[in-house]
Amino acid sequence: MPRRPDPERLAAWRLLLEAHAAVVDRLGRELEAECGLPLTWYDVLLQLSSAPEGRLRMRDLARAVLLSRSGLTRLVDRMETAGMVCREAHPSDGRGANAVLTPAGRAALRRAAPVHLRGIDAHFARHLSDADAAALGDALSRVVAAERDPA
Amino acid sequence: MPRRPDPERLAAWRLLLEAHAAVVDRLGRELEAECGLPLTWYDVLLQLSSAPEGRLRMRDLARAVLLSRSGLTRLVDRMETAGMVCREAHPSDGRGANAVLTPAGRAALRRAAPVHLRGIDAHFARHLSDADAAALGDALSRVVAAERDPA
Repeated sequence: MPRRPDPERLAAWRLLLEAHAAVVDRLGRELEAECGLPLTWYDVLLQLSSAPEGRLRMRDLARAVLLSRSGLTRLVDRMETAGMVCREAHPSDGRGANAVLTPAGRAALRRAAPVHLRGIDAHFARHLSDADAAALGDALSRVVAAERDPA
Repeated sequence: MPRRPDPERLAAWRLLLEAHAAVVDRLGRELEAECGLPLTWYDVLLQLSSAPEGRLRMRDLARAVLLSRSGLTRLVDRMETAGMVCREAHPSDGRGANAVLTPAGRAALRRAAPVHLRGIDAHFARHLSDADAAALGDALSRVVAAERDPA
């Protein structure tokens, strides 16, 4: 028999999937309604804005985003058409390409951030006690650290 | 100023996104490699198999799945072509449609389940202490309960 999780850990995994689906769904609908911005676009804008000069290689952007890894190329195409990012050839080799945040992309992120942060507070943070937040942070840090650089 | 989460809760939210992305990515690649089944298909098969007679209205299936709510119609199209689900008119009205698990879909789920459960153990469950699992379950239950039936 292959190993399988015990019932309590399997339940915790399903709750993580349910909480993620419910909260991401809600945050996405609010951001779309109030700012006309899909949450997947926000994710790309945020990752680029955190990088030096607002610039990342496409492969690094694909690792950094948290919501739409599989459809990233087409997502960046749509954001380029909308003027929020542009692509440039990577200087060190002819193959790679950078995605670069434009001023319009930076402005969209700045407008959307308060709506998004208010949503995280309303739909996630306010349901957690201080002890919950600490326990969640500890447990998930361990998962992320182990899975980020797997043996 | 709109409310925003404090740094510890915002960090917990980002860790939830990171853990979800890392583990779902890994589980998806393993299931695809070992069973040729996308994780989004597994999610649909699992939700249908948990319903009476393996049958759900499309709108209820859309609420039940945890991984691909936005592209569900096309996903079910592809699974129908692969013979894992079929569609039938809903008996009580002419408009709704049911998705129904086929024997081939049930067999695919049965083959995939041990691989998926082993992955949950390896990439999530084994990183959690008993206390972690309990704390995570408690905290995420509160989020899910509050967001499932929002005021």
